[in-house]
Amino acid sequence: MQISSTQPTLDNSLSQPLAETLRQRRQCLANQIDFPVLLWSGRSSPRNFPANVYPFRASSHFLYFAGIALENTVIRLDGGKLTLFMDEGTAAAALWHGDMPKRAELAVQIGAEEAFPLAELKSYAEGAATIAAQDAATRLQQSHVLNRIILPANQSQSLDLSLAKAIVSLRLRHDPVALAELKKAAAVSVTAHQTGMQILPKARVESEIRAAMEAVAIAHNMTCAYRSIITVQGEVLHNDQYHHPITSGDLLLADMGAETEAGWAADITRTSPVSGQFSPTQRDLYDVVLAAHDACIAKIQPGVEYREIHLLAAQVIAEGLVNLGILRGQPDALVERDAHALFFPHGVGHLLGLDVHDMEDLGDLAGYETGRHRSDRFGLGYLRLDRPLRPGMLVTIEPGFYQVPAILQDPERRTTYAEVVNWDRLAQFSDVRGIRIEDDVLVTETGYEVLTAALPTQAEAIEAFIAS
Amino acid sequence: MQISSTQPTLDNSLSQPLAETLRQRRQCLANQIDFPVLLWSGRSSPRNFPANVYPFRASSHFLYFAGIALENTVIRLDGGKLTLFMDEGTAAAALWHGDMPKRAELAVQIGAEEAFPLAELKSYAEGAATIAAQDAATRLQQSHVLNRIILPANQSQSLDLSLAKAIVSLRLRHDPVALAELKKAAAVSVTAHQTGMQILPKARVESEIRAAMEAVAIAHNMTCAYRSIITVQGEVLHNDQYHHPITSGDLLLADMGAETEAGWAADITRTSPVSGQFSPTQRDLYDVVLAAHDACIAKIQPGVEYREIHLLAAQVIAEGLVNLGILRGQPDALVERDAHALFFPHGVGHLLGLDVHDMEDLGDLAGYETGRHRSDRFGLGYLRLDRPLRPGMLVTIEPGFYQVPAILQDPERRTTYAEVVNWDRLAQFSDVRGIRIEDDVLVTETGYEVLTAALPTQAEAIEAFIAS
Repeated sequence: MQISSTQPTLDNSLSQPLAETLRQRRQCLANQIDFPVLLWSGRSSPRNFPANVYPFRASSHFLYFAGIALENTVIRLDGGKLTLFMDEGTAAAALWHGDMPKRAELAVQIGAEEAFPLAELKSYAEGAATIAAQDAATRLQQSHVLNRIILPANQSQSLDLSLAKAIVSLRLRHDPVALAELKKAAAVSVTAHQTGMQILPKARVESEIRAAMEAVAIAHNMTCAYRSIITVQGEVLHNDQYHHPITSGDLLLADMGAETEAGWAADITRTSPVSGQFSPTQRDLYDVVLAAHDACIAKIQPGVEYREIHLLAAQVIAEGLVNLGILRGQPDALVERDAHALFFPHGVGHLLGLDVHDMEDLGDLAGYETGRHRSDRFGLGYLRLDRPLRPGMLVTIEPGFYQVPAILQDPERRTTYAEVVNWDRLAQFSDVRGIRIEDDVLVTETGYEVLTAALPTQAEAIEAFIAS
Repeated sequence: MQISSTQPTLDNSLSQPLAETLRQRRQCLANQIDFPVLLWSGRSSPRNFPANVYPFRASSHFLYFAGIALENTVIRLDGGKLTLFMDEGTAAAALWHGDMPKRAELAVQIGAEEAFPLAELKSYAEGAATIAAQDAATRLQQSHVLNRIILPANQSQSLDLSLAKAIVSLRLRHDPVALAELKKAAAVSVTAHQTGMQILPKARVESEIRAAMEAVAIAHNMTCAYRSIITVQGEVLHNDQYHHPITSGDLLLADMGAETEAGWAADITRTSPVSGQFSPTQRDLYDVVLAAHDACIAKIQPGVEYREIHLLAAQVIAEGLVNLGILRGQPDALVERDAHALFFPHGVGHLLGLDVHDMEDLGDLAGYETGRHRSDRFGLGYLRLDRPLRPGMLVTIEPGFYQVPAILQDPERRTTYAEVVNWDRLAQFSDVRGIRIEDDVLVTETGYEVLTAALPTQAEAIEAFIAS
C-alpha cells in the first residue's frame, strides 16, 4: 500500500522537522549497512497482574528511527526505506483506551512508505538484523520472526553486531531535533531540582523532597529517566529508599532527571545542606568536588579522551584531599595507586541521550571505543565511557566524595592504604556521607555547552537558593 | 539452621502483630492443603536497559505470606512451617545499594524457621505447588526448579489450581493487619484527591492535577496502585494520557489510588467540575450516578450477591435516565435489554486488596464463585465480581455514565436501541463526557464500612471543597 504524503498529520508536535530528521537518520544508517533491519518497540511489562502494567517505554533504538512510542510495533529499515508493521486497535481497545490513530495515519506521520499488520512481518524478515528487546515477550517474538536466537548485541551474531555498531555511530552524536528534546528534559529537570531545594528546609522525610521534584516532571507530562536518588545517605550510590528523616545537619543528595515523551533524558545531581548552610567541613569537601566538576567541564572539547577527564577528576579530588589533610602524598602518585577511589569509587560520567546511560543495552559497545575494554583497576573499573569526545556527544560530569563503609572498613583496603589516609583527620568530616555534583555537558565544535547550567553549583549560590 | 526468635528485628514497622499475622495466614493455608508450596517474589523488569529497571513489585501472593517485598526470594510453606530462600547481597551491591539485612535477620522478621541460599531450593521442590510469577525471568526459574511448565493458575495443573483456590479463600477476607494497611492506603488516597480538587481551578493541563495527586502518594512513601486516570475525556475508560488542556466547562474525572510499601491498594474516583460549579446538565447526570453509588453501598451486607448490586446500579441509572428523558421505557425492561450499558458499559466494581483488581492474576478464580462464568451479555460481560459478599471482603463501588463514541455511534447498537434512546434529548447533555464515583467498601459482620468516606461525594460538597 502506498500512502499519499498529502494526508494530514494527527499531532502538531510531529511537525516537519521530526519527519525530516527521521528520514535523515534512516539515510545515515543506510549509508553504513547493506542489509535490512527490523526494530521492535517492545511491549508493556506486567506489574502484579497482566492488565496492571508498568508505563510502556518503547525501545530507544525504535524511538530513534520511528519517533513515536507505539507499543507492539515493528519498523523495517532497508536502504533508507521505512515500512511499518502494527495491528489496528480493536473495538474493545477503543472503549477502554479511546480511538487510536490508524496504521495508515501513523505511517504518514513517521514517513513510512508502506504499512502492514504484524501478521505480514515474517515475510519481510529474510536476512534482517535486529537489536534484542528488553522484555521477554518481545524477544520471543523476535526469535520467532527471525527464526533464530536473539542475543544481546555485544554477544550477538555478525549482522546484529554490525547493526549495533552502526546505530552507535549515529546515536553517539545528537542531531538538532534530539538536542531540542534533550534541552527540554534538562530544563524541566532544573526546575525539579530548584523546587526540591526550595522546600528543603520544610521537609521532614526524603520522600517529601522526592514528591516535590518528581511532581515537576509529571506536571510537564514527562517521566523520570531513572529511579530518583533523594537521600541523606549519599554514600549509598544508588539509594532508592526514601524513608529516612531529614535533619538539620544533613546533606541531601538529589540525583533526578526527567525524560520527555519522545524518550530523551536528563540526569542532574545536586547536594544541598538541609539547614540552608554548609558546615565548615561539609563546605571544604563540597569545594573539592566542585573543583573537580569545574575542571572536568572546562576541559571538554572535541578530541579530548573522556578517560583523561575522569583521571583529571581523580587528580583534583586527590589534591583537594591532600590539602585537607585526609590523604597523604603526591596527588599523581595517589591517583596511580587508586587512593582517590576510596572516596570516589565510580566513573566521572557517561553518555546521555535516549537512555540515561545511553545505549547501555548494547553493553560497552557505545561507551568504549572499539578495541578498548573495562579496566580491572579499582579506580577505573566503573568508568562507563572511554572514547575521544566528538561534537554532538552529550556526557554527564559527576564527580563525588563518599564515605562508604563497605570500602573504608574493608580490612584489605585499610591495609593497602594504611599510610596514605589520615584516619583521625577523616573522622573530623563525619558530617559528610556523600556529595555529588552532576551536570549534562554537550560537546560542541569548539568546546562545550552545559545544558543544565541554570542550576547553581557554587556552595554560596546553593545556600542563597535555599534561602530564597 | 535454627534461628533463635530472640534476635532483634531490624525494622520497627514489622512489629509483633505482622509476624503473628503471617503465622496465622500460613496456618490457615495449612488447614486447607496437604502439599508443600513455593512462592516466588519475582524480579525487577528492565525498562530501557538491564540496569534501569521499573520499581520492583513483589508478587502479591508472596507478600501475603512473607510481608516484605524482597526481590528474587522464595518462601516454602509446608504445614504452617516457613522456609526462606534468598542469596545474601554481594560487596558490589553494598556499594551501590547499601548494606542489606542478612538472610538470617530477615528470616527472624518474617518468622521463618530455616533459611538457605537459592542454590538449595531445588532440593526442597519435590511435589510443591506454586503460582505463576508475572515476570518471564522468574517463570523460567519456576519451571527449572519445579521441573515442569508453569501455567497461569486458572489453566494450571491440579496442584497449582488447588493452591490458587486455597489462597483465594484466604485473601478474599481481610484480617486486621491487612485492613490497617488498606485503611492507610485509603487515607493517603483521600488526601491525594482532596489535593487534586483544591488545585483544579488553577490547573491548565491534566498532567498538573496528576502531579499534585501522585505527589501525595510519593511523599507518603507509597506508589500508585495503578496508572492514574486523570482526564477531561472521562468517556475513555482507561485513559492514560494527561496532555489535554483543562477548560472551565469540563468535568475532570480522577481515578487514582495509592499502594502502601507492603503492597495494599486503594482505588478512588471522583468527577469534579473544573469551574467549581456543575452545569445543570452535568449536575443532573452526576446525581443519577450518585444515586446509583449510594443505593449500591446501602445494599452491602453479608450474603448479598455482588451481581445484584451491579444490577441495582444498572436499575438506578436506567431510572435516572428515564426521568431525564434520555431513555424511554420501563427501567426493568431497559436493564433486561442492556440499554443501561450504552452509558454504563463496565461492572460496578471489583475486589480490592494487595492488587487493585485483587487476585486478577488468577483469572476469574477470585472474582467468580466456583461454577460461575462471565456472561456474554453486553451489560454483564465486564462484571469482575460475581460472589455472595462475606464479612472482611473489600470491594469497590463505582457506577458511571459515559458517552463513548465507539458505543453510541455503533450502527448496530443504534438500530438495536433506536426507540429506547431519545437522541435529541441526549444531545442536550453534550457537556458530559464521563462521570464515575468510586469508593472502597468493606463488608462487615452487620453491613458495611466505607474506607474512603472522608472524601465528599455529593455535588454540593464537591463544589464547596473546590471553593475551599
